[in-house]
Amino acid sequence: MAHLLSTSCCVKISSSYKPHGQPLNQVRTALPTSFTIQTSKAPFKGLVFQGGKVGRSCVVRATAAPVSKEASAQPRSGSNGSPNEASKAQRVMVIGGDGYCGWATALHLSNKGYEVAIVDSLVRRLFDHQLGLDSLTPIASIHNRLRCWKAVTGKTIELYIGDICDFEFLSETFNSFEPDAVVHFGEQRSAPYSMIDRPRAVFTQHNNVIGTLNVLFAIKEFREQCHLVKLGTMGEYGTPNIDIEEGYITITHNGRTDTLPYPKQASSFYHLSKVHDSNNIAFTCKAWGIRATDLNQGVVYGVRTDETSLHEDLCNRFDYDGVFGTALNRFCVQAAVGHPLTVYGKGGQTRGYLDIRDTVQCVELAIANPAKPGEFRVFNQFTEQFSVNELAALVTKAGTKLGLDVETITVPNPRVEAEEHYYNAKHTKLIELGLKPHLLSDSLLDSLLNFTVQFKDRVDRKQIMPSVSWRKMGVKPQTVPAD
Amino acid sequence: MAHLLSTSCCVKISSSYKPHGQPLNQVRTALPTSFTIQTSKAPFKGLVFQGGKVGRSCVVRATAAPVSKEASAQPRSGSNGSPNEASKAQRVMVIGGDGYCGWATALHLSNKGYEVAIVDSLVRRLFDHQLGLDSLTPIASIHNRLRCWKAVTGKTIELYIGDICDFEFLSETFNSFEPDAVVHFGEQRSAPYSMIDRPRAVFTQHNNVIGTLNVLFAIKEFREQCHLVKLGTMGEYGTPNIDIEEGYITITHNGRTDTLPYPKQASSFYHLSKVHDSNNIAFTCKAWGIRATDLNQGVVYGVRTDETSLHEDLCNRFDYDGVFGTALNRFCVQAAVGHPLTVYGKGGQTRGYLDIRDTVQCVELAIANPAKPGEFRVFNQFTEQFSVNELAALVTKAGTKLGLDVETITVPNPRVEAEEHYYNAKHTKLIELGLKPHLLSDSLLDSLLNFTVQFKDRVDRKQIMPSVSWRKMGVKPQTVPAD
Repeated sequence: MAHLLSTSCCVKISSSYKPHGQPLNQVRTALPTSFTIQTSKAPFKGLVFQGGKVGRSCVVRATAAPVSKEASAQPRSGSNGSPNEASKAQRVMVIGGDGYCGWATALHLSNKGYEVAIVDSLVRRLFDHQLGLDSLTPIASIHNRLRCWKAVTGKTIELYIGDICDFEFLSETFNSFEPDAVVHFGEQRSAPYSMIDRPRAVFTQHNNVIGTLNVLFAIKEFREQCHLVKLGTMGEYGTPNIDIEEGYITITHNGRTDTLPYPKQASSFYHLSKVHDSNNIAFTCKAWGIRATDLNQGVVYGVRTDETSLHEDLCNRFDYDGVFGTALNRFCVQAAVGHPLTVYGKGGQTRGYLDIRDTVQCVELAIANPAKPGEFRVFNQFTEQFSVNELAALVTKAGTKLGLDVETITVPNPRVEAEEHYYNAKHTKLIELGLKPHLLSDSLLDSLLNFTVQFKDRVDRKQIMPSVSWRKMGVKPQTVPAD
Repeated sequence: MAHLLSTSCCVKISSSYKPHGQPLNQVRTALPTSFTIQTSKAPFKGLVFQGGKVGRSCVVRATAAPVSKEASAQPRSGSNGSPNEASKAQRVMVIGGDGYCGWATALHLSNKGYEVAIVDSLVRRLFDHQLGLDSLTPIASIHNRLRCWKAVTGKTIELYIGDICDFEFLSETFNSFEPDAVVHFGEQRSAPYSMIDRPRAVFTQHNNVIGTLNVLFAIKEFREQCHLVKLGTMGEYGTPNIDIEEGYITITHNGRTDTLPYPKQASSFYHLSKVHDSNNIAFTCKAWGIRATDLNQGVVYGVRTDETSLHEDLCNRFDYDGVFGTALNRFCVQAAVGHPLTVYGKGGQTRGYLDIRDTVQCVELAIANPAKPGEFRVFNQFTEQFSVNELAALVTKAGTKLGLDVETITVPNPRVEAEEHYYNAKHTKLIELGLKPHLLSDSLLDSLLNFTVQFKDRVDRKQIMPSVSWRKMGVKPQTVPAD
């Protein structure tokens, strides 16, 4: 499972896409007559899974035609709401732009007037197939998503389908799109996924570390002024018994003082992969003058943003399963279907949280206020801290108000982590740049619960309980039974 | 260059090996009549190099025959000088046992009475071929090395040729040899090598991180009480402006105190790979109860140990080139051939150093005093600190005494590093376990210089100057010109 994906086609799609269903906000615009997709020339590499191999195939289901440079030859200024300040990057490549945070971010940036390209291998969708999981919300294909975005807003988002671990593909995207900023969400992003079995642990670290190395080399080689905005995680820090600072800590020791990288204590192969990335990026800032912002993001909740709400084909994914679902989103789905809220262990695990509307805001702030050449800048990207027990209480209260019968149960903690601990993490730098947080108010929670109730018939209750054990993981590939 | 090597044959060699040349210390013993090599069944994976591919092939040049379990069926007690204390591990797997430190360590442990197996892909020898480099000293094949060791001492060292990134191979070695301790030298170990080009940077991080992950999974799955002794590097710490502690530092911050992993600031993709390893290992100690010792080793100098001196076919490798050569060894070769000593930049770069005779001693001490289950123990493994300028002065003085004309020149620093800095690293834990250091006395330096003079006709002067630039490295595979 080392090199999981790379794609094979250079295609141009001429489409007569009609958004199906009703535009959520009654937005109706002219349909685009053509749409350009650029993909790499490299073939898919084999995916070893459960002893077998997924055959070589092409993910782009479209009529193949000669490669077109049309998209990158388009005028480079934003169509409206353009970023005007000289400090703002104009062309932003969003790696992992088909994922939960990446999709919302790509639309937000496009809406703000940036020229946006999505780079994605679509492997996140493959994970769902392989594990028998599905988003609570129905999500359109990336092709239809982008056609819809064009139809609804008139804005084009370029698309490069391929694996950034394939440097030939990544080089093509850089030289074709010529980004001023790269937002890198393109990693395996689930801690439980990385703890399923040895192949997935190895995949996670290989995929994330090598993909990020390739991005760094691409910037150095092709776009040395390009600003890297990398998604890290608050989980890199672990739960130290002192305040968590933003990336660095000043230490006085034996009469001498230095400001050093904040010590990391990650607690899954996924979280560790992000620590490795941070260390690699910091080095290249120093050695090569790379300009980088590491966004140590907290746990994201919510689903709707201004942009994804415009049409149902723009709807974001919403994961509630034990592998990809995150705490608050999962609790809302559990409450919606009458499943007890599943608190792992004592429930004192405290983390930073943020609304997905703040994720997109934070990334835009980082792009609009780029790091200096050679600077490795670290922001802690969250707005509030909650313990798991506090979240359960909030969901219980909101659910009861909506007439739901909400219970909470304690389940054995599948993770290895402190269940009662000190936690105080700083998060002022993005506020200083202008972040206006959407805090977890009662009304937001009501809205989120109502949203999950709307889709409750799509819930597969078998996916709710945690199925991955940190201690019991083994070396053999695991599959999900078909029962 | 991701998966560089794995091997393909299960062979048994019946040999009538006669050590050629003169035994250095006139040791003569009976010759062995048979010798068992165990290798993996997996085929070589392709090595992408300079756009082409090295074909699939088998590294073991021997008559193939049915696999034999003979070696692992031998009695498991040491033949003499056995470790008697209950705390001592009896069966030690030395991964990377054909390399500079690994070879010396494997012989030392065998000599001390441990049952030793060497696991090695021999890729270090391939690097020399690819880069046009060679050891100052002629070195025998691993097969002849082990035959000679058997002939000279009567002791058998088992051999498993294969790549630990191939988990099927590694599983076979674990289940066949059943180690009580694993000494893991099996990594790409050169900072300049990791900075040659993108493929080699990626290879270094993939090879080192995934290989170590596999070792951790093998221990968890097959030998959960096995003690991992992992070779790290003092370079993980960088050059902070405060004292360097052994792995952990107690920090008081905003009125609270915790003991946390010492912050790391590695300065090459190689050094970073070791940081990644340390973080991964620390996590598995906590999550799985792995017992591990991380030996943050300084720069090793010297070549002869009690064991490698027994016969010329046991002689260790000695690297003096700009890629694999380390500071003091390189200066001695430069002095021997009348090449100016090459100081990079200002020469104030200060590091910890140790004699290779202390490397083998330290590893044995770690094995004999294992970490507890779940403990991630870090020792700084060096005996003295020197700046590059101090080393140059010492070699100049010793060379002059031997009648050599020794000059020093400053060359532009190919690395990105502080050239004048504070440096004070603790190194008491191995002393407390009983390490008796071989300090860099005049007599040792005389001996080392005489050794290099003995082999000076083998020196390729073109390999002396640094050829790898931290700042100029690019994305394309580099080769060494044939001129």
